[in-house]
Amino acid sequence: MSQVNIARGMRDFLPETMRRRRWVIGRVRSVFERYGFAPLETPALERLETLTGKYGEEGDRLLFRVLKRGRAASSGQADMGLRYDLTVPLARVVAMNRSLPMPFRRYQVQPVWRADRPQRGRYREFMQCDVDTVGSTSPLSDAECLAVVNDSLGALGFESFTIRLNHREVLSAMVERAFGTASLSQATEASILVTLDKLDKIGRSGVARELSARGATEGSIARLWQMLDQLEAPSSTEHRLEAAALALPERAWPALENLGHILSLTCSLGVSEDRLSFDPTLARGLDYYTGAVFETVITKPAMGSLSGGGRYDHLVGMFLGKDIPAVGVSLGLERILAVMDELHMFPPVSSEASVFVAALDAGLLDSASRLAAKLRAAGIPCVMAPEALRAKKLFKRANQMNVPFVAFIGPDESTLGRASLKRLSDGRQWTATAQELLSIILQT
Amino acid sequence: MSQVNIARGMRDFLPETMRRRRWVIGRVRSVFERYGFAPLETPALERLETLTGKYGEEGDRLLFRVLKRGRAASSGQADMGLRYDLTVPLARVVAMNRSLPMPFRRYQVQPVWRADRPQRGRYREFMQCDVDTVGSTSPLSDAECLAVVNDSLGALGFESFTIRLNHREVLSAMVERAFGTASLSQATEASILVTLDKLDKIGRSGVARELSARGATEGSIARLWQMLDQLEAPSSTEHRLEAAALALPERAWPALENLGHILSLTCSLGVSEDRLSFDPTLARGLDYYTGAVFETVITKPAMGSLSGGGRYDHLVGMFLGKDIPAVGVSLGLERILAVMDELHMFPPVSSEASVFVAALDAGLLDSASRLAAKLRAAGIPCVMAPEALRAKKLFKRANQMNVPFVAFIGPDESTLGRASLKRLSDGRQWTATAQELLSIILQT
Repeated sequence: MSQVNIARGMRDFLPETMRRRRWVIGRVRSVFERYGFAPLETPALERLETLTGKYGEEGDRLLFRVLKRGRAASSGQADMGLRYDLTVPLARVVAMNRSLPMPFRRYQVQPVWRADRPQRGRYREFMQCDVDTVGSTSPLSDAECLAVVNDSLGALGFESFTIRLNHREVLSAMVERAFGTASLSQATEASILVTLDKLDKIGRSGVARELSARGATEGSIARLWQMLDQLEAPSSTEHRLEAAALALPERAWPALENLGHILSLTCSLGVSEDRLSFDPTLARGLDYYTGAVFETVITKPAMGSLSGGGRYDHLVGMFLGKDIPAVGVSLGLERILAVMDELHMFPPVSSEASVFVAALDAGLLDSASRLAAKLRAAGIPCVMAPEALRAKKLFKRANQMNVPFVAFIGPDESTLGRASLKRLSDGRQWTATAQELLSIILQT
Repeated sequence: MSQVNIARGMRDFLPETMRRRRWVIGRVRSVFERYGFAPLETPALERLETLTGKYGEEGDRLLFRVLKRGRAASSGQADMGLRYDLTVPLARVVAMNRSLPMPFRRYQVQPVWRADRPQRGRYREFMQCDVDTVGSTSPLSDAECLAVVNDSLGALGFESFTIRLNHREVLSAMVERAFGTASLSQATEASILVTLDKLDKIGRSGVARELSARGATEGSIARLWQMLDQLEAPSSTEHRLEAAALALPERAWPALENLGHILSLTCSLGVSEDRLSFDPTLARGLDYYTGAVFETVITKPAMGSLSGGGRYDHLVGMFLGKDIPAVGVSLGLERILAVMDELHMFPPVSSEASVFVAALDAGLLDSASRLAAKLRAAGIPCVMAPEALRAKKLFKRANQMNVPFVAFIGPDESTLGRASLKRLSDGRQWTATAQELLSIILQT
């Protein structure tokens, strides 16, 4: 017998875990629908050429590649890959369906796959929950992303979290001012931003070391800290935006104005102002973002960001040859579940069934089946014991299953045309007709 | 610009299709839960050795193979494959989780992938909806599969369908009697059954031709027809079972008794007797079935079977080295959807949103956002127009979106601190406070 195993980095979700996942997804989905986002699903497999070149070098390396139909592994011909995120498939759908009414506002809840090195809390298959608005440059579309995150986390019971917000142009202008224009190629700018994004983790000294290693002068690094001090000094987001307008070159002003609009609209959509923070160091996932970028953090426990997103006005254009603006946000379901688990935020989950129905004698399975059918027809979920059980075993199993009721038919009940019902919470027991037992269950 | 395309044999599900799929899955799932089946999900990717050798030669050919992490396509090293069905992953889960309480009754609704040649109505990714009971040999577990199919199709609005039932041992005994024991190897028996399974499609003459080509004598084929005539003559299932007991060797009697129990329990579970049919020619998917087999057909339109299943008492043993009995059924969601589409069985589906909220002027987006927030907080799903719209365009778009209400704020409304609401069904219009409009919407 060969050892049986699940594939590396993969997980099975047994019933108890599934109930929690389904509860969370149900809550999130109902927020998505309250904002009028429409459901979309795309296939797990995409043509390789759709996926490659969209996620950066590292992303290309992490694509799972699938062999062509009927090819032996040794032929090595792969022409498809597994979905890496939900954004690139959305861009493909928009490019292929030119008659979609714009703006196209969709939500999508599906797994994605990444050939990452598995480690604690990092899996190769994980669920993403995304909303995106395609075909609008309005800051209201950005604001709705933030409001959806706020309401989703609220619906799950999160109370203290911060939605951090920045803009690609603010970052770019800041780097330009600190390091000088002339010497700054695109690649260098990107690598500086990647380093800057680690500020939370490695602090200023760590970032300075990395920047020096990349050839930045001490003077430019000092200018960067000075600028950040200036931008981060004010405690209110409004004053921070004003400070940024003073510190940054004119090219950053439209971006700052855009952020101001987004923040104001987000508050109008009902998000408390103290949950929003303009953070000039936030630099997340720069691959396809072109405007506002955002993420959500909670401080306890430290789990990284629970959501991330931003505006990407050129991605659809990579497929279509014509740009269509878009903005979206992704909720990190796995992280959210991990935090909720650590903070004991799940409501008690129970089994699907309300009643465990059994026959005490093999000849009574038909009678027990008729009883179960009657309860199920009234909408009461029942689990039946497939084999006849003795009373003692019956109650033992019912306790393990965590059902509120046990219903059973033994020879005594059968003779009378009745069944017995026991409520496990208080041990109370009734012997009556199926119809009467049904009423008792419905009244509890 | 390279041409953008979806991968071959794959489909996107745009919102209207998604709503129908979600409606059907929701109905089916609620039946599964009423029977107390618990949710399970397994990963899309399984180790190749888990998948191979379970689905027959043809199945092995249809597995999508995935390259090892970080390997270039040219290295040709595949060690994982995409899930081909939900039954083998279940068997792996049971073998790996020895402490699962038995019987383990689970449902699973997930896509599966097969590298079939794409053609009309056949896709490479499709959804399966399965229930299985593992750890019980009781005919009640088989009967519950049939009752779940009956109730699921009923919940979707199907009225006339037939659940056909047979038993692996009945088939085997019938072939033995017609073709003789001595000359019959396992392989030949299987190939005869595969041919026999085509009776519906190619008729007796077609089956006879194929059997002759495989070396069957005219005499043995005549014996087969004679036996079938005997078995199929009685119109009631009860009499058919009696006829089979007369026509078949003694080794088939326990199987016939088992079928009798399953049928009786299925009726006790509330399934109408005239929907059940003992069909001695039914031979479906023999790879891992060991006992009862079943499928569901509707005659109009002719769409093949809407569900299939059976007992497979040795599959878990292939992983565990120790047999654990199991029985299950799979609803063919894609076929069910196709039939429902053809028969116009879907209820009217509407957009997620009840209200389309817009500002008539860019400066009023904040006011419109506050209005939308108020409605959403009361549970009313709203779509906002991200840009300000003129009234004419606003109503045009609302009609396209098929929402019942439009709410808007223009300069007039803004001055009064009010908003306007129009009901599209009758054109009635109100101008009032947000709170008043909310009451009007809730009362409609």
